[in-house]
Amino acid sequence: MKTIQKLLLGLGAGLLLIGCGNNSKSDSGAMASSNAEKVYVAPGEHDEFYAFLSGGYSGNLTVYGLPSGRMFKEIPVFSQFPTNGYGYSEESKAMLNTSFGFVPWGDSHHPDISQTNGKLDGRWVFINENNTPRIARISLETFETEEIIEIPNSAGNHASSYVTENTEYVVAGTRFAVPNPQKDMPIDEMKGEFKGPLTFIKVDQEHGHMEIDFQINMPGFNYDLSHPGRDKSHGWFFFTSYNTEEAHSMQEVNASQNDKDFIAAVNWMKIKEYVENGGGTEVAGTYAHNIYDESTMMATTEMKEGVTSVDPREVPGAVYYMPVPKSPHGIDVNPTGEYIIGNGKLSTQLSVYSFAKMQEAIKNKDFDGDAYGIPILKYESVLEGVVDSGGLGPLHTEFDGKGFGYTSFFISSEVVKWKVGTWEVVDRQPSFYSVGHLTIPGGNSREPFGKYMFSMNKITKDRYLPTGPELEHSAQLYDISGDKMELLLDFPTHGEPHYAAAIPADLIKSKSKKYYDLEDNNHKYAAKSESATRVERKGNEVHVYATTVRSHFSPDNIEGVKVGDKVYFHITNLEQDFDVPHGFAMIGANTSEILIMPGQTKTIIWEPKREGVWPFYCTDFCSALHQEMQGYVRVSAKNSDTKLRWSLDDEWKE
Amino acid sequence: MKTIQKLLLGLGAGLLLIGCGNNSKSDSGAMASSNAEKVYVAPGEHDEFYAFLSGGYSGNLTVYGLPSGRMFKEIPVFSQFPTNGYGYSEESKAMLNTSFGFVPWGDSHHPDISQTNGKLDGRWVFINENNTPRIARISLETFETEEIIEIPNSAGNHASSYVTENTEYVVAGTRFAVPNPQKDMPIDEMKGEFKGPLTFIKVDQEHGHMEIDFQINMPGFNYDLSHPGRDKSHGWFFFTSYNTEEAHSMQEVNASQNDKDFIAAVNWMKIKEYVENGGGTEVAGTYAHNIYDESTMMATTEMKEGVTSVDPREVPGAVYYMPVPKSPHGIDVNPTGEYIIGNGKLSTQLSVYSFAKMQEAIKNKDFDGDAYGIPILKYESVLEGVVDSGGLGPLHTEFDGKGFGYTSFFISSEVVKWKVGTWEVVDRQPSFYSVGHLTIPGGNSREPFGKYMFSMNKITKDRYLPTGPELEHSAQLYDISGDKMELLLDFPTHGEPHYAAAIPADLIKSKSKKYYDLEDNNHKYAAKSESATRVERKGNEVHVYATTVRSHFSPDNIEGVKVGDKVYFHITNLEQDFDVPHGFAMIGANTSEILIMPGQTKTIIWEPKREGVWPFYCTDFCSALHQEMQGYVRVSAKNSDTKLRWSLDDEWKE
Repeated sequence: MKTIQKLLLGLGAGLLLIGCGNNSKSDSGAMASSNAEKVYVAPGEHDEFYAFLSGGYSGNLTVYGLPSGRMFKEIPVFSQFPTNGYGYSEESKAMLNTSFGFVPWGDSHHPDISQTNGKLDGRWVFINENNTPRIARISLETFETEEIIEIPNSAGNHASSYVTENTEYVVAGTRFAVPNPQKDMPIDEMKGEFKGPLTFIKVDQEHGHMEIDFQINMPGFNYDLSHPGRDKSHGWFFFTSYNTEEAHSMQEVNASQNDKDFIAAVNWMKIKEYVENGGGTEVAGTYAHNIYDESTMMATTEMKEGVTSVDPREVPGAVYYMPVPKSPHGIDVNPTGEYIIGNGKLSTQLSVYSFAKMQEAIKNKDFDGDAYGIPILKYESVLEGVVDSGGLGPLHTEFDGKGFGYTSFFISSEVVKWKVGTWEVVDRQPSFYSVGHLTIPGGNSREPFGKYMFSMNKITKDRYLPTGPELEHSAQLYDISGDKMELLLDFPTHGEPHYAAAIPADLIKSKSKKYYDLEDNNHKYAAKSESATRVERKGNEVHVYATTVRSHFSPDNIEGVKVGDKVYFHITNLEQDFDVPHGFAMIGANTSEILIMPGQTKTIIWEPKREGVWPFYCTDFCSALHQEMQGYVRVSAKNSDTKLRWSLDDEWKE
Repeated sequence: MKTIQKLLLGLGAGLLLIGCGNNSKSDSGAMASSNAEKVYVAPGEHDEFYAFLSGGYSGNLTVYGLPSGRMFKEIPVFSQFPTNGYGYSEESKAMLNTSFGFVPWGDSHHPDISQTNGKLDGRWVFINENNTPRIARISLETFETEEIIEIPNSAGNHASSYVTENTEYVVAGTRFAVPNPQKDMPIDEMKGEFKGPLTFIKVDQEHGHMEIDFQINMPGFNYDLSHPGRDKSHGWFFFTSYNTEEAHSMQEVNASQNDKDFIAAVNWMKIKEYVENGGGTEVAGTYAHNIYDESTMMATTEMKEGVTSVDPREVPGAVYYMPVPKSPHGIDVNPTGEYIIGNGKLSTQLSVYSFAKMQEAIKNKDFDGDAYGIPILKYESVLEGVVDSGGLGPLHTEFDGKGFGYTSFFISSEVVKWKVGTWEVVDRQPSFYSVGHLTIPGGNSREPFGKYMFSMNKITKDRYLPTGPELEHSAQLYDISGDKMELLLDFPTHGEPHYAAAIPADLIKSKSKKYYDLEDNNHKYAAKSESATRVERKGNEVHVYATTVRSHFSPDNIEGVKVGDKVYFHITNLEQDFDVPHGFAMIGANTSEILIMPGQTKTIIWEPKREGVWPFYCTDFCSALHQEMQGYVRVSAKNSDTKLRWSLDDEWKE
């Protein structure tokens, strides 16, 4: 290795070793006791905040309570979820379609809750997929994924999915510079040839539906993270970039040569106007747009073609670069919108930029040259101050709404609290170990709720009982209501949480849906009463219109199915009460089970391969007679003349 | 409905309504404070017990700590797991093969920890799959699934996977009576025609490998749960059965007509001898046997044919039925092995049988007729006592090793503590809500650790912040160290836990593997150093022998791949330290990502569909330069002559 990386990695390792001795001093005696009470949510009581943690390589979104650190749900988003059949059932599998075909797995990174006037409004959570660039929208009434849109012409959508302060837009960015349009070319000729499109996706305010509005075809750097301006800086969006060296190999070393990389400051309001007035060029770009319709209970894919591409150099005053030391990772904006924080991950300092100074520098054309035609604002002209922390490797900053910023330092493995305005460090706490993002409920809005902060740490090692070589990652919850941060709790996470969004429970709990109204069930194959249940043959397709209610299926005996048939079980759960799901499993099905919520219809396919009498059953312990909730299907030979008939309690119908 | 079921269900619903008001009185004030301290595990400290909870419809096994109730790991067993590529990667996908083909999902029910001399020995956890009858073995060194064996001629393997007191056998049972052998026949002629095979699987004591020893071809009732005898009753196994009515439809009503169903008492030692002496008949039965080899890091499937079937009537003194009221669910044996508990799920009482009395009744041929040739022991002759609890719907009983039993009552939604010997009820606590199984660490062995008990509850409703119609299930942790049970904590679970096995952490934590030794890596496609990395073409197959180390792939640039190729990425993680996994994701791959533990090699396939330069990257935040850990593959047209070459840091090789 050529540069400071060896030193940095060495330092990191050293600090980790120091950290491994369970040397957290504040955990014992009276302090531990009071911390115990602070995180304890007694049986029958509820947590104060919801936290939505990304699942990273799980592709999902997990829901936790704060301060207890308990996981309440894993919401499947970009990955198949055998638990309830998401990504397997006929209704849901379209959600995982992409322009590359069906992709069973995703890598979810940064959830962001919808906002109105810069405040959390609790309508939706958005979350991005990195590997196959996509953004998903999850309903905060049903806690289900309702929509996934793919981002074409991009690779590694990491800078996503932050929203503007009225949820006008959610953004995506290219983490890996790629040819745009894609083409077969030598890798080592990438410099100047690859591009880094940033994508702005409009959000329909009524239904939340997403639509790609435009892509800004930026120079081919790696765009890492982003944050919207708010309040006075509303109308702007800020993106960090690294690998301004445009290295294509061994980036560990070759992408860390420049002393400064860039923050891209994008005046999206200006580009929006430009596009509305006919600006931009229609370019190729195939992408899947998947929507789950709660009424028909069916997800469908629309494969779309073409996006509006904007050359940033052709929209005067729309895009600038601000220099930031070294290989910045996170970019954050304080609640007033005045300060923009660049977290240079290989540096010791945080750079704080002033939005007012930026405006002034733009007016004065206070430039330090340009990068591929994008003006570079003079570092000194836009810099408001520096947080000189003494830490190493700042990654991300959150705000408490009381005038303080909290920054994670990966290499020195700590959280540093500092004062907005004076930039002085007022507290620091070691993290166990190697902290990534931090989250404060609303810490990403005009109105943070500065009672708790939690860190999402990358190394777990000795934090919990060992579970072999593979460990869950770990989070740490701090009380930040006082002057000093107080470590309360370690709690394991599921998947690899990157960012998390959190919100006071009171803002959403009352509108949480308890069941689906049978009357609103417009599923094509729903049987809305037992009298509507039936079995129909269409060629070698057999459609079973079945129902569940405690504690039987209707029908529960079926005959006349043949080897070679394709049997569609459409199961409607007739229950109309909270928390009475039924499940359905059929021996020999190569799809999955399905878990059906009250009022819902779901479908799986079974292709019987052998003659016999084969059972099915309910997979969710639903009542005292759950074990009796079963049925049989008789399967005859392909050429048999067994009549198609079905029954409940020996009343055969055909 | 014809019978008492309506009443029972009505009662259940009523009790649930009563239960819904957060009316847990012991949660406030000083008591809550001391409970908080009891469950609090301060940062840097460890839990006292491991608990292994079945995932039910998730098909997996989850690992929790007690008393904190924190989930440390989800171990994929019978289901695909996008998080780490289990069931998708080339190495692991054979684990999900069955005689019905590849089944991506399972329904796991009852974990049991291996025993020696009737005590937990912490070598392995076994867990059963219900839908596609199977048993899995999980290593407690690696916390990974090492083996899955299918059970032929069965349907709904629910009575599984309990082990005998030296882990000689693990058992399986047929929950749904089926034709054996399977045949196309009218469902309503099932009576007397269907069978209920019980399967005994031998466990190799060195490696834990499983082998089907024999199947007992029992009458066609539904076999629900089982427990081994121990100590004085070692050599026997007990199974509950229901639907002795042999109803095939609307079992909710029709399978609950008999006042008593049966416990099958099986002298497996006798049958073992019988089979060893040439007894039994070789019958058809196809089943998959999947083994993961830690050395080659590869799972393979052997499709096997034929099992030894034993007609229980032909082995004198081997199998008896004991009557038990009504539709029993759980069957449990106390630590001394003398008492066998039948939990009649539609009754109010627990029936306690004496092993000594059973022996005596057998000697005296104290029979009440027979069922399909199996002698029925007289109820009064084998009954030792009755726990007259006043509760309704007993499901399962655990023991604390201090002379008490703890029984869950589903319908009256409570846990009842009673004294072994006097059968008097000494305490009862409401559960929130509708409790299924209970677990006490070692509660299923000669030596329980009676400090904590937790209940796994079926209805969650208001226990946590709501998350839409779909909720996680809920567990409740009790302190049972004193005379009275004390409710300490509600904690959500993942999937639907049925049973759980728990063990003192000290018995296994020290042998938990931290990483895989590179020297022991015998994977066929491993590259054990960067100098061994290469790319090979074989027709349209391209094999990439790649490595990872903080923070780069080798190679990280590849050219000469063509549209239509099948690219195998074999990634070896060269790290040799605890908790330094790397991940691998390739845009456009329709398989999954893989998460590779230190020293391990894993493989995924990518079939590029479009020309271009496409990135791959590490999916697990591994270091300060994780974001730089990426590479590119150049994809050319099918007929192009782009040379196959690869590089790290611009040193191209071909």
